[in-house]
Amino acid sequence: MSEHIVTAFTDELEHLSANLLRMGGLAEAMINDSSRAVVTFDLELARQVIKRDEAIDELEAEAEKAIIRLIALRHPMAADLRAVLGAMKLAGDIERIGDLCKNIAKRCLELTGEENRAAVKSIERMSRSVSYQLQKALDAYLRQDVNAAIEVLELDDDIDDHYVSFFRETLTYMMEDPRQIGSNTHLMFMAKNLERIGDHATNIAKAVYYMVTGETATGDHIEARIKKEGSGR
Amino acid sequence: MSEHIVTAFTDELEHLSANLLRMGGLAEAMINDSSRAVVTFDLELARQVIKRDEAIDELEAEAEKAIIRLIALRHPMAADLRAVLGAMKLAGDIERIGDLCKNIAKRCLELTGEENRAAVKSIERMSRSVSYQLQKALDAYLRQDVNAAIEVLELDDDIDDHYVSFFRETLTYMMEDPRQIGSNTHLMFMAKNLERIGDHATNIAKAVYYMVTGETATGDHIEARIKKEGSGR
Repeated sequence: MSEHIVTAFTDELEHLSANLLRMGGLAEAMINDSSRAVVTFDLELARQVIKRDEAIDELEAEAEKAIIRLIALRHPMAADLRAVLGAMKLAGDIERIGDLCKNIAKRCLELTGEENRAAVKSIERMSRSVSYQLQKALDAYLRQDVNAAIEVLELDDDIDDHYVSFFRETLTYMMEDPRQIGSNTHLMFMAKNLERIGDHATNIAKAVYYMVTGETATGDHIEARIKKEGSGR
Repeated sequence: MSEHIVTAFTDELEHLSANLLRMGGLAEAMINDSSRAVVTFDLELARQVIKRDEAIDELEAEAEKAIIRLIALRHPMAADLRAVLGAMKLAGDIERIGDLCKNIAKRCLELTGEENRAAVKSIERMSRSVSYQLQKALDAYLRQDVNAAIEVLELDDDIDDHYVSFFRETLTYMMEDPRQIGSNTHLMFMAKNLERIGDHATNIAKAVYYMVTGETATGDHIEARIKKEGSGR
C-alpha cells in the first residue's frame, strides 16, 4: 500500500476501534444498571436500560458499514485484515451483550419486589464478576494484549461455577415456597443471561487473541500458552 | 477482476456455500435428535448429539479460514463482498445453533424420564417449528431468495408465542407438584434454547436479505417489503 493509503487505513481503523470501545462502555453500564434495577427494584431504571439497547444496535450497524467500507476500499491483508474481521466479531458480541441486558431489564419488570434477598444478592455478585470480565476484555482489545486476553478466558470458569451454584440455590427456594416459583424462574433466567454475557466477553478475548497471534484460540492453543506463561508467574 | 480470477472466486464461493449448507444440515439433524432424545428419554442419543457439536465447530473454523483467504486473495467488492461477509455471519449462527442443541442434549442427561408428558410434547412441537424455520432459512440462502427470507422472519413470532405459552404452562406444573421443579426448570431452559435457535434462523434469513438486497434487514425495511409483496399475495 502507498503511504497515503496506509495512513488512511490506520486512521479509519482507529476510529472504528474507538467506536467499538464506546459501544463496549455502554454495554458495561447496561450490565451494572440492569442488576441495580433488580436489586433496588427500580422499574424506571429497568425501562431506561431497555431503551438504551437501541443505541447499541445503531452503533453496531454503523460499525458494520465502516468495516465493509474498509475492506472494499483499503483491501487490508494479514494482520490488518485480522484487525478488521476481529472488529466485526467484537461488534456482534457487544450487540448481543446489549440484548441480554435488555432481557434482564425486561424480566425485572415481571418481578414482585419481594423476591428472596439472598437470590437477588447473588444476581448482583454475578453481575459484578461479569462486568469486570467485560472490562478486562475491552482493555485487552484496547492494548492488543494477548496475556490480558488469556486472563479473561480464565475468569469464565468462575462465572460458570457461580451460575451452577445459583441454580441449585434457587431451586431450594422454589421448593420451600411454591408461590415464589414464577419470580424465582425470572431470577434464574437473569443468571443465565449473565452467564451468557460472560461467554460473549470470552468471545471478545478470543477475538483479541486471534488478532494479535493470527491463531484461532482453541482450548489447546490457549492451554499451551498458559503453561508456557504459567511457569513465569 | 480478470476472467480467470472471477472464475476462481466463483468456484471458491460455491465451495464455501456448499460447506455452510452441510453445516446447516448437521445443525438441523441436531435439533431433531436432541428433541427426540428428550421425548424418548434416549440418553445414548443425547450423548451422540453432544459429541456432534465438535464437527460443527471444526467446520466453522474451516469456513472462517476460507473466508479470510477469499478476502485476502480475491479482494471481492460490492455483491461479492456481501456474499463473503454474509457467509461469515451464517457460519457463526450455525455454530451457535450447534451449541444450543448440545445444551439441550446436556440438559436431557439431567432429566428423570418422568417429566410431565404434556410439557415434553410441547418441547417436541417447538423443536419441529424451529427445525422447519432453519430449513427454510437455509433454503433461502441456497436460492438467494429474498422473499423466502422474509417468510422465515415472519415465522419467528409464532415460535416466540409458543415459548411464552410453554413458560406459563410449565409454571403451573411446578406449582402443582414441587418435586418436579428441577426437571421442569430444565424443560424451560430447553424451550428457551429452542426459541434462541429460532433467533439464529432469523439471523440467517436477515443475512440472506442483506446479501441479495444490500440493505440491512431492519423492521422498517422488511415491513415495507412485506406490504409491497402483500398486495400480490
